[in-house]
Amino acid sequence: MDSATCLAIAQRDGCEVTALTVDYGQRHRVEIACARALVRARGVLDHRVVRVDLREIGGSALTGTAEVPKDRSSAAMGNEIPVTYVPARNALFLSLALGLAEVVDAGAIYIGATAVDYSGYPDCRPEFLAAFEALARVGTARGIRGSPVEIRAPLVALSKAEIARTGAALGIDYGLTSSCYDPSVDGAPCGRCDACQLRRKGFSEAGMIDPAQPRT
Amino acid sequence: MDSATCLAIAQRDGCEVTALTVDYGQRHRVEIACARALVRARGVLDHRVVRVDLREIGGSALTGTAEVPKDRSSAAMGNEIPVTYVPARNALFLSLALGLAEVVDAGAIYIGATAVDYSGYPDCRPEFLAAFEALARVGTARGIRGSPVEIRAPLVALSKAEIARTGAALGIDYGLTSSCYDPSVDGAPCGRCDACQLRRKGFSEAGMIDPAQPRT
Repeated sequence: MDSATCLAIAQRDGCEVTALTVDYGQRHRVEIACARALVRARGVLDHRVVRVDLREIGGSALTGTAEVPKDRSSAAMGNEIPVTYVPARNALFLSLALGLAEVVDAGAIYIGATAVDYSGYPDCRPEFLAAFEALARVGTARGIRGSPVEIRAPLVALSKAEIARTGAALGIDYGLTSSCYDPSVDGAPCGRCDACQLRRKGFSEAGMIDPAQPRT
Repeated sequence: MDSATCLAIAQRDGCEVTALTVDYGQRHRVEIACARALVRARGVLDHRVVRVDLREIGGSALTGTAEVPKDRSSAAMGNEIPVTYVPARNALFLSLALGLAEVVDAGAIYIGATAVDYSGYPDCRPEFLAAFEALARVGTARGIRGSPVEIRAPLVALSKAEIARTGAALGIDYGLTSSCYDPSVDGAPCGRCDACQLRRKGFSEAGMIDPAQPRT
């Protein structure tokens, strides 16, 4: 949902988009198939799917066999880093995007990080994104040439309801997206993990129907 | 050679080492076998080899089919970023190391980056390493808890000769290491790429014999 909305915003901004999906051994692999369908629907011509085997590093319920927490309260989401945290995941994603930006000569990286209705991951916060932009200035050929890559996180200060409304206004079909951390084998969302709860809250507050609702 | 020396320094510093090797589709894959032999010889009990398919991103002679430059002058090495530059490679390596540091609860990451006898890559410079350390402070659970991971680059200001002497004094068997960007199928170094030239210069200036010399 967040990445899809972010893509729509990049297109609205007039960007010629190169899309990057990371296949990191996530249990919610259905999001990779969703990404393929989404970029096709949005007319993105260049889509890279990079494989990184984070199971070798471990440490997360999203790449291992630990249980994905269900029915966490919103207070808990605000106060604890959950076991679904993939250590340094956004640093990894942004590093891959930075390499790709160097190769395709992109001036900006869009990332759907959000720090409002979120699970409390440290690497979704504005200070992290600013630190990565500083890294990009000194660590790349583009930066050395004086035209560093910008990091744009247009969702960072938006609520999930605002994200849903923004994407809908830009024509995103959320039926092509998947947010669940623990979907069934056929990709159906569990309805109870943090991601499902935050998504439901967003659609509900926006007064919208989620076209990819969990089964009842 | 640099990673091996860096490992010896970490051990000298009293660290209990978790070793990380990245299999990123490099044409000099022999370095992965070397890393396995080296960590065994040094008594490192935990060695992770993480696969990342950077060929999907491309943009480097080290992951593609472009020719590795041979016989570059040292003036050229100081002034141009060569085609062997893998875009944002050290950001990627350090991001993976940062994730691993979170998982094994490591207080420091050692990286064998050097900015003296080197190919002119932007992501080997001290300002890049400092920017990554700043990123680690804000982007990890450890950082949030107030015990951020340090980035240590003990070779960054050393010449290749100083690196060779330091490693030898710490018992590194450089016969177990490989530096060449374009080895033959059996792993023999080419003797002419930047890495071979810098290595030869280092051993020569140190008055040492390289146990892994190219064939004559």
